[in-house]
Amino acid sequence: MTPSLDKKAEQHPLFQKVEKVRRRPAKVRDTTVTLAHGSGGKAMRDLIDDIFVKTFDNPILSQLEDQASFNLAELATLGDRLAFTTDSYVVDPIFFPGSNIGELAINGTVNDLAVSGAKPLYLSCGFILEEGLPIETLREIVKSMKIAADNAGVKIVTGDTKVVHRGCADKLFINTAGVGVIRSGINISAQNLQPGDAILVNGYLGDHGTAILIARGELALETTIESDCQPLNDLIDKIIEICPKVRALRDATRGGVATVLNEFAMSSEVGIRLFEPELPLREEVQGVCEILGLDPLYLANEGKLVLVVPKEYAETVLEAMKSHSAGENSHIVGEVIASPPGVVLLQTAFGTERIVDMLVGDQLPRIC
Amino acid sequence: MTPSLDKKAEQHPLFQKVEKVRRRPAKVRDTTVTLAHGSGGKAMRDLIDDIFVKTFDNPILSQLEDQASFNLAELATLGDRLAFTTDSYVVDPIFFPGSNIGELAINGTVNDLAVSGAKPLYLSCGFILEEGLPIETLREIVKSMKIAADNAGVKIVTGDTKVVHRGCADKLFINTAGVGVIRSGINISAQNLQPGDAILVNGYLGDHGTAILIARGELALETTIESDCQPLNDLIDKIIEICPKVRALRDATRGGVATVLNEFAMSSEVGIRLFEPELPLREEVQGVCEILGLDPLYLANEGKLVLVVPKEYAETVLEAMKSHSAGENSHIVGEVIASPPGVVLLQTAFGTERIVDMLVGDQLPRIC
Repeated sequence: MTPSLDKKAEQHPLFQKVEKVRRRPAKVRDTTVTLAHGSGGKAMRDLIDDIFVKTFDNPILSQLEDQASFNLAELATLGDRLAFTTDSYVVDPIFFPGSNIGELAINGTVNDLAVSGAKPLYLSCGFILEEGLPIETLREIVKSMKIAADNAGVKIVTGDTKVVHRGCADKLFINTAGVGVIRSGINISAQNLQPGDAILVNGYLGDHGTAILIARGELALETTIESDCQPLNDLIDKIIEICPKVRALRDATRGGVATVLNEFAMSSEVGIRLFEPELPLREEVQGVCEILGLDPLYLANEGKLVLVVPKEYAETVLEAMKSHSAGENSHIVGEVIASPPGVVLLQTAFGTERIVDMLVGDQLPRIC
Repeated sequence: MTPSLDKKAEQHPLFQKVEKVRRRPAKVRDTTVTLAHGSGGKAMRDLIDDIFVKTFDNPILSQLEDQASFNLAELATLGDRLAFTTDSYVVDPIFFPGSNIGELAINGTVNDLAVSGAKPLYLSCGFILEEGLPIETLREIVKSMKIAADNAGVKIVTGDTKVVHRGCADKLFINTAGVGVIRSGINISAQNLQPGDAILVNGYLGDHGTAILIARGELALETTIESDCQPLNDLIDKIIEICPKVRALRDATRGGVATVLNEFAMSSEVGIRLFEPELPLREEVQGVCEILGLDPLYLANEGKLVLVVPKEYAETVLEAMKSHSAGENSHIVGEVIASPPGVVLLQTAFGTERIVDMLVGDQLPRIC
């Protein structure tokens, strides 16, 4: 060490300038996102400090290390397995009736953890921002993410920000990954279905898909339908408490209930029979589907569970679900049958049946 | 159960058709990515099965649950803390000398885990694909990811695919998140620097940034410089074995060595003095920087560590690094000083000093 040089440095005019800039509190002064916000330098640091760290507000994120870390022994008090998942969110428009891309990015990943029987704990968050995105839009979305994270009882602990030129992305895309701990003794899997099991859903189907479709404004339709975007972990806690033997659980997002049930039927090599009159559908959603020739079974949801339980638990589970705010309109909608394996049948009110296959084409791009 | 109905279903012409389609092995028949590949239906399932599941080839991913899960007790045999990180990759161009966006997405996240002293274990992978991306391009990138994952000893265990309309993204963006386990007793943090500590890097600086700059073809320059994209976990294992007291470790990506050292200096409230003649720089990188007025200290790297160790370990660590393929050109490049706190100084060959501040503007957008 050479104290004389250090002394010299402190008196250096550049050092004075550096100190002056650094003493300023971190604050994004631009009104729109610029390429500099993704450069790794001062502008990015200000964006991270002023928007992400300040809003998400937790001591793990604030350390700004390249990774978050957690004590494994503490995690082990919650269960015996770690769950890990990811989803990217590209929904268009980014604000839509009832929710926005930020809230969706939290609830979607919380739900993907919760359906394994895990307690969701920590999320990562990767932003891809288009140059020119208004800073106020970003602030609003980040605020929604914080509220959603608090609601679901999770923390956003690590993240990343990239900026691409105008026209190289559409406003913003968000990736969240998440970790949680699966309770000991729980075994939830698409492979567990057995003939005789009951199939339940926790409320009206197709709200999210319909809300997005209407929000795009390409159709001359007006409705009051809002996205059902909500966290499902608390409802799932209740269900598991009553029925630790729950066979399979999944949230019916892209591809809707039909896709989840087809995956269940194929994984377990069983058949599934749905009872059409039992499917909870809002009149408005049914109306939109009839006008547009859509099948509500394929419409996306962002707060709807499909669950399979042994038949003897069906009524108790249903009652518990109905008494929870996320499950007031729960229904038993079908049963597992031995044959035909891998096939989902829909039984109409008239007793006729049709096959509900996997979606072949694309119903609605950028739904989540 | 009503076997008669099931029997009827099996004879149903639609069921026969469903069975015929399902018996076909999953195969992407399109030559480019379409919106249907992101719809949640059959086309997406084929894309996932034919490209991701087949290439990444591991039993956890193949289950196609909405989340991967791991035994916590097994994780605890590797250390006492879980590390969790994420990065999105938007590099332009997606193929560049020495590497591509896929390999980068694996090594980048592996390195973000490894610099905490963690053994990187499992990665998630979220793709955002632009409609029209050639399927062969996607296959090639996914293959690179698999090779990189094998090299680094990690598994890709969960993922997500979204497709956006042509013009709403630029070819493809990849997010990876990762989990690993930090060895017991290791405490690596940007807050740990102490005056007297030595600062080392593991080889030539600025190769990645220069390679991308040249690959964009906007400059009439030709060089043989390749990206230094590589996993650093094995090198870090060696370093920690020799020096469990390593203070701080970070890979110098966006913003380069200058940014990492500024973060270290600010977090630990110490000064840092770099010795300019000791900085390992290729002549070609120096040449490009001189022509374009760039400072190589801010250029991105994708396989370069900045590490701080107590002075007494410096020479032993340096020798170990030099004997590793990822550290042949390692150098001791600086020292930690008590004052001025939060400032990085560069001492030239002539003994003069200048301040190396945080980058203010943007040097190179979409570098990673």
